[in-house]
Order: sequence, then C-alpha cells, then structure tokens
Amino acid sequence: STESNPIRATLFPGDGIGPEIAESVKQVFSAADVPIEWEEHYVGKEIDPRTQSFLTWESLESVRRNKVGLKGPMATPIGKGHRSLNLTLRKELNLYANVRPCYSLPGYKTRYDDVDLVTIRENTEGEYSGLEHQVVRGVVESLKIITRQASLRVAEYAFHYATAHGRERVSAIHKANIMQKTDGLFLKCCREVAEKFPEIRYEEVVIDNCCMMLVKNPALFDVLVMPNLYGDIISDLCAGLIGGLGLTPSCNIGEGGIALAEAVHGSAPDIAGKNMANPTALLLSAVTMLRHLELHDKADRIQEAILKTIAEGKYRTGDLGGTSTTTEFTKAICDKL
Amino acid sequence: STESNPIRATLFPGDGIGPEIAESVKQVFSAADVPIEWEEHYVGKEIDPRTQSFLTWESLESVRRNKVGLKGPMATPIGKGHRSLNLTLRKELNLYANVRPCYSLPGYKTRYDDVDLVTIRENTEGEYSGLEHQVVRGVVESLKIITRQASLRVAEYAFHYATAHGRERVSAIHKANIMQKTDGLFLKCCREVAEKFPEIRYEEVVIDNCCMMLVKNPALFDVLVMPNLYGDIISDLCAGLIGGLGLTPSCNIGEGGIALAEAVHGSAPDIAGKNMANPTALLLSAVTMLRHLELHDKADRIQEAILKTIAEGKYRTGDLGGTSTTTEFTKAICDKL
Ligand SMILES: CC(C)[C@H](C(=O)O)[C@@H](O)C(=O)O
Ligand SMILES: CC(C)[C@H](C(=O)O)[C@@H](O)C(=O)O
Repeated sequence: STESNPIRATLFPGDGIGPEIAESVKQVFSAADVPIEWEEHYVGKEIDPRTQSFLTWESLESVRRNKVGLKGPMATPIGKGHRSLNLTLRKELNLYANVRPCYSLPGYKTRYDDVDLVTIRENTEGEYSGLEHQVVRGVVESLKIITRQASLRVAEYAFHYATAHGRERVSAIHKANIMQKTDGLFLKCCREVAEKFPEIRYEEVVIDNCCMMLVKNPALFDVLVMPNLYGDIISDLCAGLIGGLGLTPSCNIGEGGIALAEAVHGSAPDIAGKNMANPTALLLSAVTMLRHLELHDKADRIQEAILKTIAEGKYRTGDLGGTSTTTEFTKAICDKL
Repeated sequence: STESNPIRATLFPGDGIGPEIAESVKQVFSAADVPIEWEEHYVGKEIDPRTQSFLTWESLESVRRNKVGLKGPMATPIGKGHRSLNLTLRKELNLYANVRPCYSLPGYKTRYDDVDLVTIRENTEGEYSGLEHQVVRGVVESLKIITRQASLRVAEYAFHYATAHGRERVSAIHKANIMQKTDGLFLKCCREVAEKFPEIRYEEVVIDNCCMMLVKNPALFDVLVMPNLYGDIISDLCAGLIGGLGLTPSCNIGEGGIALAEAVHGSAPDIAGKNMANPTALLLSAVTMLRHLELHDKADRIQEAILKTIAEGKYRTGDLGGTSTTTEFTKAICDKL
C-alpha cells in the first residue's frame, strides 16, 4: 500500500491562526488517508545568518529535500536587519511562479457567480527586485527588472498548466504601451512560448483594461500570466470577486520541481487560538499540493468535501456568516470523506 | 449678463466618435446657456517638431492661454518617431493630477449600486518616466521615479479636493511594503499634507488589498490618491464597477491652474460617424470642467439632466442596452434643461 511508503512534505504552520488551520489540514488528510507524513517547521525566534531572516536554514533544507510543502500565514517580525519571510522563501527556494486558481464557490454568494480562472504570477523579479535608491534629495527611483529567462520560465509554466488542466486560453497581462522594453520583453517571451502551444488560445490584455473587464465580466478570462506586481494586484482582485483571501488557494512553483502551497491571507492575531479561523484557504492550498503530486483522486475527494460543506451552509465559520468553530467545520469535512 | 463676457475654452473633438460626442456637448451647453466659447483644435496630420507629436503647438498654446479645455478620444497614429498624444499633453501642459469621480448611476444596473468615490492619480512620473534600457541581452530595466515635489503636489490637490467637495476621507494607495523608498516617499509626502488637514480622515491602503476591498465593498472608499501606475489601474477598475469608461468623467489638473477634462474611453472607429456613440463620459467630463470654473449652478443642472435621462431609460444608446442615437439621447438631455 502507499501507506507503507509515505511522501514526506514540509509543513510550516505559521503564526497566529496558522497552527489551528494546519491542524485542520492534518485531520482532513488523515480522514482521507492521504499518504503524507508531515515534517513540521516553525519560524525561528532569532535571525538565522544563513537565511538573513527568522526562517531557519533547516526549514528551507526540509523543503529542498521533500520538494513539497504547505505554509500557513507568517507574520514578519518587526524590526530592521532581516528580510521578510515570504520574500526569503521566494528567493531562497527560487519560487518562480505563483499559481492561484480562483473560482466562485457554489452556495457562497458574492456579486459574482461565474468566476473560474487561474492567475499565474512571475514571482522573482519585476518591481520586487529590491533595487531602490535616492538619486538626489527628494528624488528616488526603483528598478523594475524583467529578464528573458524568468519570463520564458513563467510563460512555459502557464502554458503547461493550461494544457494539463484542460484550459483553453492564456492571457498575458502587461502595460507594454508604457513600459515598451520591460513589459515588451515579457510579451515577446509569452509569444515565443505561445507558438509552441497552438491548441491554446493566446491573447494580450493591458492591465488597466484587464481590471475593468475582470470586474465587469470575469468569465471572459481563463488562465492569466503576468509580471510580479500585476500578479500581486490581480490575484487579490480576483480573490475579492469570490469572497476574499480566506477562500483562495495558492501554490508556488520553484526550480527543480519544488511546490510550496500556501494560504495567502494574514495570521489574524485577533482571533488566534479561539477556534474561530476558517481553514478553507489552507485546505484548498493543500489540495493544489496534492495535484502537484498527481494524487488527483485524493485531491478531488477532499476538494469536493470542502466545497460541499461550504455549499450546504450548515457549518460555516464566522467570516462566512456562520457560527461554527474551526473544529466543527473541519469535522463536517472529515465526515464527508 | 455673463453672455457678453464668455469664457474661452479649448475643445479637442478628437478622432473616431470624438466629433459626434463633442457636438453633443456643444448642444447641451448651449441649451443650458453656459457662457463658454469653444476654440476648436484638431490633431494635426504631420508631426509638429515643437511638440514631437501630431499635436500642434497652436493647440497646446490654446490650452495654456484659456486654462480650460475639453478633450475627446485621440487615437495615436501608428509609427515611430513621435510621442503618444495623451502623454504629450500630460508632459507639455504639466498635467500633474488626474481626477476621476466615479459613482453608481441611478437606474443603470451593474453588480454595484453603492459606488461613490474619486480617484486622484499622480500623472507625471512613477513608471511613466519613459526611462528604460537593456542592461545586457535578455535583461531590461525600467525606472520608477518618485519625487517629493510631485508627490506633495498631488497630495495637496487631493486634500484640497476632499475639502472643497465635502469628502471625509483620503486613502493613499501604495506598495511601500515592497517599494519602501519610492512608495515610502510618496506616503511620507501624503502624511505631511494630511497633517495640515486634521478634519479629513487619512489612511494608507496597500494596492493589492485596495483592489480586493474595492470589488468586495467599494463603499469603503471616498477619495483615493496614488502614484501614476496604480492610478491607471484603479481608475479603470472603478470605472468597471459602475459600467465602464463610457460613463466616467475625467479631468486633468495642470500647473498654473489648467484644467483639461477628457473622456478616457477609446475613439471607437467601428461606430464612428454612425450616430451611435454614447456622449456621457465627455458630457460628465465637461461638467467637471464647469465645476473647476466654479460654474456650479450650470454644472448641477447639466449633470442632473444627464443622470435623469439615463435613469429614465427611455433614451439610451446601444452600449447601455438602448436603441437611441447620439442625437436622440442628446436631445432628451437638452429637453430637460
Ligand atoms: C506580503 C507581501 C510582501 C506579498 C507580496 O506583495 O507579494 C503579498 O501581498 C502576496 O501577494 O503574497
Ligand atoms: C493610453 C494609455 C497610455 C493611458 C495611460 O496608461 O495612462 C490610459 O490608460 C489612461 O489611463 O489614460
């Protein structure tokens, strides 16, 4: 049986509500007999000089070794002299693509009921280069970097993803009418890759127009691929369409086949430890991790149980207008497995 | 009477549907006895070396002299060696703030019925610097420039605007958690200005979170002020909430008290000359021009007539689901004046 040969995966429960929602994932996975053995790592209390952040070197080594991981929310401790935890993970593990499927949840009403798209964000460069300086007093500049290598890599990921998931269209989002060289290079790379996937429709949409179309008619979109900052903006906008970051999964793809799934919402310290948190985003992220491992049967079953529980509406956490605790909601999901 | 001493204003009818919707403004203004005399200018057929674009020097001089103008859509002719018409206007006239009031139109149904906000966009710098270059093959960078001068200027405009229009809150939109120096300087300037307006509430919202909140609950926002690219994105997103760029006014404020109002939608060459275009965006833009001239009575009357005509629904152009021609819609407005 697969149970005799479990897959090891790194788990960062994270801060605030992190441990509670991570517990929910562990219970759901065990109810579904997922052959995964978790290797838990917490954010350190001191700066690890090897990572320049509160993340320990051992925790990064764990992801590198296991090649799969799941991450709860991490609150970057305040103070100078260290790097943000999220950015450290992206950099150290070379997490080049951030993938966020976003779809309307049956039975959970928002202003939209026809969202079904996936944003794929370049996750390593662009405005996130960290290169900024003061030119003279009162004049500062930051560098947006676009490289052929990173653009091709994320474009290829997007087209492979579209193919593997039966998606029909990839839209490259850009502002090349203004940033002709940087966004122009990004588009050029997308076009090159698009030619190798003649069965996938390819289009280019300017970011401002894309946001307008998304709020008017999100059903127009399928897979969207874009540079870092646009991805940051558009993935949150899309999450808003279906109810917020508490409901949307996210998975980061790294060089060498690494997949680090994560809940992208905050650590909600105000409700931490109160058994009130909604584990949906982390659960659905864990499902994307299973899909990455090609455990599609398990992924399908768990996803169905989560969506059904939300749709039925009997057990919902406070953020969704219900009164259930984290454990009650989790149990309702487990009962369906 | 004011009629013996008319105010001269520059009018750029623009391309495509521009002349038709400009005609609509002229008729409505004359029905409302607005004491304005138009000075019409068209985009030239050749590049004017003094503007490096198809805009004539005379037309820019006209705006500089009159200090008020109205602009229809302009299609930048394709080809190299000249600047975009919109960017040339912003640069040459130092149009430092782009102001876009955005509110749900009574009777015109979208997914939102509670939008009432104003985006104020820094319009001269940021990612629009035009400074881009290839570092080495396959690596390009563009410079985002933020200056203290331009940030203070637009922040001051935003707080004065909020005060003059009875608005309660100004939200500065940023990504200073990533661009600490550039967006950090922008925020620092906003905070400095905010201190001088203790009666206006001030808050700071990260751009990704702002977009999520806007699609979930736009009523949370009042006046938003932000750097150039964020303004480009968010103003279009907001337009989408209430129906699109065909319905939203825009006004550019320049150094020396210049106000150039403009419809920001395209020139729609497919329906040009067919008496099908919706003049609402240009009409409402013309209303913002009247407010800038402190002709509030005229502005109120015209705005009311436009909104009533749309609300009644009997005369609507095709883009709003009706069958009226541009002239029928215009006449319906004039009949109310
Ligand atoms: C917290 C912040 C640095 C991060 C980002 O900007 O990438 C977040 O918004 C995200 O999308 O993961
Ligand atoms: C046409 C384009 C250059 C322009 C911009 O990016 O500013 C437009 O989107 C706008 O908002 O006026």
